[in-house]
Amino acid sequence: MPRNPRYDILFEPVKIGPVTAKNRFYQVPHCTGMGYDLPHSVSRLRELKGEGGWGVINTEYCSMHWSSEDAPYRLCALWDDNDIKTQSLTTEKIKRHGALAGVELWHGGNHSPNRWSRETPLSPSGSTQHAVFPMQTRAMDKEDIRNLRRWQVQAAKRAKRAGFDIVYVYAGHGYLPFQFITQRWNQRTDEYGGSIENRSRLLREMIEETKDAIGDTCAVAVRLAVDELLGADGVQAAEEGEAVISLLAELPDLWDVNVSYVDNDSLSSRFGPEAHQEKFTGFVKKLTTKPVVGVGRFTSPDTMVDQVKRGVLDFIGAARPSIADPFIPKKIDEGAEEDIRECIGCNICRAQNNTGVPIRCTQNPTMGEEYRRGWHPEIMNPKNGYAEDPVLVVGAGPAGLECAMSLAKRGYDVALADAARELGGRLNFEPKLPTLSAWVRVRDYRLGQIAKLSNIEIFRESRMDKAGLLESGYKHIILATGATWRRDGVGHNNYFAVPGMDRANVLTPDDIMKGKSVSGDVIVYDDDQYYMAAVIAEKLVQAGCNVTFVTPGLDVASWSLYTDEQFKVQVRLMKLGIKLVLTHRLAAWKGDHGVFACNYTGAEKRINGTTLVSATSRLSDDALYLDLKADEAARKEAGILTLKNIGDADVPGAIVHAVYAGHKAAREFGEVIDPDQFPFKRELVFVK
Amino acid sequence: MPRNPRYDILFEPVKIGPVTAKNRFYQVPHCTGMGYDLPHSVSRLRELKGEGGWGVINTEYCSMHWSSEDAPYRLCALWDDNDIKTQSLTTEKIKRHGALAGVELWHGGNHSPNRWSRETPLSPSGSTQHAVFPMQTRAMDKEDIRNLRRWQVQAAKRAKRAGFDIVYVYAGHGYLPFQFITQRWNQRTDEYGGSIENRSRLLREMIEETKDAIGDTCAVAVRLAVDELLGADGVQAAEEGEAVISLLAELPDLWDVNVSYVDNDSLSSRFGPEAHQEKFTGFVKKLTTKPVVGVGRFTSPDTMVDQVKRGVLDFIGAARPSIADPFIPKKIDEGAEEDIRECIGCNICRAQNNTGVPIRCTQNPTMGEEYRRGWHPEIMNPKNGYAEDPVLVVGAGPAGLECAMSLAKRGYDVALADAARELGGRLNFEPKLPTLSAWVRVRDYRLGQIAKLSNIEIFRESRMDKAGLLESGYKHIILATGATWRRDGVGHNNYFAVPGMDRANVLTPDDIMKGKSVSGDVIVYDDDQYYMAAVIAEKLVQAGCNVTFVTPGLDVASWSLYTDEQFKVQVRLMKLGIKLVLTHRLAAWKGDHGVFACNYTGAEKRINGTTLVSATSRLSDDALYLDLKADEAARKEAGILTLKNIGDADVPGAIVHAVYAGHKAAREFGEVIDPDQFPFKRELVFVK
Repeated sequence: MPRNPRYDILFEPVKIGPVTAKNRFYQVPHCTGMGYDLPHSVSRLRELKGEGGWGVINTEYCSMHWSSEDAPYRLCALWDDNDIKTQSLTTEKIKRHGALAGVELWHGGNHSPNRWSRETPLSPSGSTQHAVFPMQTRAMDKEDIRNLRRWQVQAAKRAKRAGFDIVYVYAGHGYLPFQFITQRWNQRTDEYGGSIENRSRLLREMIEETKDAIGDTCAVAVRLAVDELLGADGVQAAEEGEAVISLLAELPDLWDVNVSYVDNDSLSSRFGPEAHQEKFTGFVKKLTTKPVVGVGRFTSPDTMVDQVKRGVLDFIGAARPSIADPFIPKKIDEGAEEDIRECIGCNICRAQNNTGVPIRCTQNPTMGEEYRRGWHPEIMNPKNGYAEDPVLVVGAGPAGLECAMSLAKRGYDVALADAARELGGRLNFEPKLPTLSAWVRVRDYRLGQIAKLSNIEIFRESRMDKAGLLESGYKHIILATGATWRRDGVGHNNYFAVPGMDRANVLTPDDIMKGKSVSGDVIVYDDDQYYMAAVIAEKLVQAGCNVTFVTPGLDVASWSLYTDEQFKVQVRLMKLGIKLVLTHRLAAWKGDHGVFACNYTGAEKRINGTTLVSATSRLSDDALYLDLKADEAARKEAGILTLKNIGDADVPGAIVHAVYAGHKAAREFGEVIDPDQFPFKRELVFVK
Repeated sequence: MPRNPRYDILFEPVKIGPVTAKNRFYQVPHCTGMGYDLPHSVSRLRELKGEGGWGVINTEYCSMHWSSEDAPYRLCALWDDNDIKTQSLTTEKIKRHGALAGVELWHGGNHSPNRWSRETPLSPSGSTQHAVFPMQTRAMDKEDIRNLRRWQVQAAKRAKRAGFDIVYVYAGHGYLPFQFITQRWNQRTDEYGGSIENRSRLLREMIEETKDAIGDTCAVAVRLAVDELLGADGVQAAEEGEAVISLLAELPDLWDVNVSYVDNDSLSSRFGPEAHQEKFTGFVKKLTTKPVVGVGRFTSPDTMVDQVKRGVLDFIGAARPSIADPFIPKKIDEGAEEDIRECIGCNICRAQNNTGVPIRCTQNPTMGEEYRRGWHPEIMNPKNGYAEDPVLVVGAGPAGLECAMSLAKRGYDVALADAARELGGRLNFEPKLPTLSAWVRVRDYRLGQIAKLSNIEIFRESRMDKAGLLESGYKHIILATGATWRRDGVGHNNYFAVPGMDRANVLTPDDIMKGKSVSGDVIVYDDDQYYMAAVIAEKLVQAGCNVTFVTPGLDVASWSLYTDEQFKVQVRLMKLGIKLVLTHRLAAWKGDHGVFACNYTGAEKRINGTTLVSATSRLSDDALYLDLKADEAARKEAGILTLKNIGDADVPGAIVHAVYAGHKAAREFGEVIDPDQFPFKRELVFVK
């Protein structure tokens, strides 16, 4: 299809100092959880952004010096010639596709505990570490500041040798040059402290010296957090934000602006819509003639055009949208914007990085698998074994939808059966809970693709049983029948059924999602500790209930710490007036009250309630699979050659796990898989 | 010196199935935070245990299959031929010194979220993950069990090819074969569940099959947790412990027994003495003729002899003691047991592993630096630059003591001056606080060594000032003057001085440690969040105070989570009757009450108290250094060639950081250090 002319503006070239981006699609620096430990993986990941049409593609944070590292998290580095070689892998692959390659040179200051290098941590005024850590930082003296400036220049020169087109001075996300800007970390009394001119002096010097060193052929970009959303305790757009941009307006070749800290920058869809940063960063273009890039989880080409036309941004910055769909630019360019796999803002990508492991994505199951398994985000492996056989997929939740779609894209004929009328499984229920609406995109993208595929037959309201499957004639059956929330209280902190859970006033998230109405004093018990109990609690408040939230966790929705949401979730629940009882395990349900035991002492506490909603863990709906698997004779007689159980029906997990399982099953169908052979390419340290 | 004949028994060879250990010193498997990511580092670390005389040296946990990994933590693996090559590095280096090399084959089951491999996590009955994680595990079916048994055998065969002498079946620390033993995770109704015979069936099969596969030349060891210290909720020595040992008594070639989970096995010195496991594991030798190894933070050769003579253990197992001093066996063998650098049980080694980074040790600053910096735990680099010049070290705390001792060991003449009469600095105060007594070993080891060195001159009660230093005649001055607890409330959660902190009833940990007496209603405010505030609170309770403990942390002493102590600390404080107020920051001190603000909402809470003890962060005592550094002319005139600031005086940290800084300064004195040159050997993935 030809490109919609409405979007032409997105494909205009834009000059950035001495280099020119071919279009306005700008993959801002984003973490991958790979860094220099997985050079082949990360370079292939970036290359696919090039193939997908991005005009500029950046690395993740790239340490300029070993006094800045945050192991066990995985970073890039430009410390020596080894790193030049490693980074060249990436630049070469990016530039192969006509994109510009950018590098984000990083010094973390008080975000760098240096657990691995054991170097002295640095900061403007000798603060504690950003995170609790038993070693503080050294207040940088003039020699330290000279060192830092030299490290920036040395790393910039290495970046140039590695082939980068754009080199960052990085004053965002609370890192060292930013620490000089914010008064709460910069309490210096010399020419680097006090006035905003002084507090931005280091940034100015770093920009000037980087330009002097490599500005002839490389653009020098600045990434600046213009607001921390902390009010007067932090940097504010109307104060330091405007001041710094005004002072340094024409100095860099590009301004890459955002809000800090990461939880605000990568704001999850639960806490803000597309383009949510405009209200903070919108002023920047008024103060500079240099191109400006900003982010805002942009997935709609119309929104992108609007941002450019209204003079908010010159470049459409993207991190998460480019993870969910590395081919956004190409799809828009080819009039295929309907095929965009839109980011749902669930921040599972952040959770991977926040646990120090390679990135993955709910919407894009190939993320992180590009090199090691050779998975392409847009191209399935061709049909192979059982080429003539149709495949029956039972269950159209996230695993089933992804599996059916991907099998069909391989060229297999697929039948997709679901017990319900509406395809989607859990995706028909969870997005209707408070704050989760964007998650429906997981369903809608797949339904949209399936509608275009002629080789998928849909069977609605078709609950399958063993006899039906045996009679169906299908030789290949993939079960994706989901899971059900347990009613017995078993979860992370109860190994056995909790007494009293068979009473009628014990409900599960499934009951609530299916519309069971509740009123009065409700106890929401959360031993799942991700999002479910918290959104159920919010829903019940909306319905007028008086909610007490009890969890064995140290805080509310503990695991959402990793998705950068925990703090916001807890604030939200507290502001809703929900009473919180932490670090207590459900010991018994007595019908009108629960008995909860303290994690530490076992001391019991009575909490009254008319209803208990218990979110603890789930049970796979795997009876059909186990039945069929156990009856080898019947399968043989029916001609069933392959049988597989995937997604929540295999292991209850998050949506990301279900989509991945569906995709993997589709990739591996008809292939020879040796379970004893290591299944992907490893990147190993060279030995001997 | 000749060996004390009392210790001869420790040097008897002991047969383990088809192999024989040359003595009774047995380095049990222990983590290093290195794994296969740092093969040269870990193999050199193990080699030094060989050089130090251990009869048996094991790896850390070594994954048998990629369905068992816990990234970002670093593990060994025997998944394929690459791993055989990597592991051979270690076995070769261990065996070079006449030691046996053992490998701990590992499947984590529900301790393996598989964040990196994305494989389906497994467990006996489909529980949640051990740690909160949004994907559960699959209840293993018979095929899964057959797979697991095959993986053990395949990995064992690879282990044999890699040169290991001892191969483990690992049913400890809550891992998969152990999960089958404990009823709370094994709720199966088939022949692998129910009776203890059934629950130990998998372990039996794994032992038998491993013996069949490699038992001709390799010993097969079992690591079994015989008690979980959970009472009836967990495995108990008198129940499952005895039953499993009885059932399988003669099947393995060696029993390696301990208590679970890791926080009980690696019990910190704050919560138990040397040999603390005997009361749980002492029964094992009565039920088997096979050699038994057990641990208990053994550093005293007399205790070791006692354990063997009384028939408690055949082998003296050691993890942490072998980290603090890899040369324990050699030192005992050579009559130099007084030179043993005894483990203080602070669990900083655990904290490194628990954060996914290479191991370090408070007592042994060379730990983790053996390969990459070439540091040897017993041999300093020879004297180099400034060979004839004496060095003045000012301050005899952990940094100064280590630095002076290590410089003297290099051959330099050293003067060590301290303001106090007793050398030790903070080491004279902190070990007197409740539960910290073992930490005095950091001082005592160094004082013992210094007493033997003829080239260290000690100056007590010699507070130095700038004039004194300039007149001292020393050309080389190393300042290790320590740090002081802040009195103004600045810490992780207050960037600026808290109003009211200048009142006389605000005390710091320094005041308490120096004997200030306190009574009445005391608020201990903890924004340091490691050990200090908690032990101060305990001391105050002992002194009869009524203590309220307030912290912005989610729990008490949050960072001690990493040293495996947090839970025990919190229980201890709660049992002492200390009132806890969590997630609140000190906003103001009003003389008779504090105002504390909620982390989440800012809502303020008033807490009454007659005294506030505030432990938030520290200020380096660096005035002398900064003065001297700033006055270049005076230094020149005085002939001062080098000036260095180390330890808490440079950056306040834990004792481990101070000792390390002292050691590093000693190693680097008189060496040419280019600050722009990457300072140690990296282990990188091979590119191109």
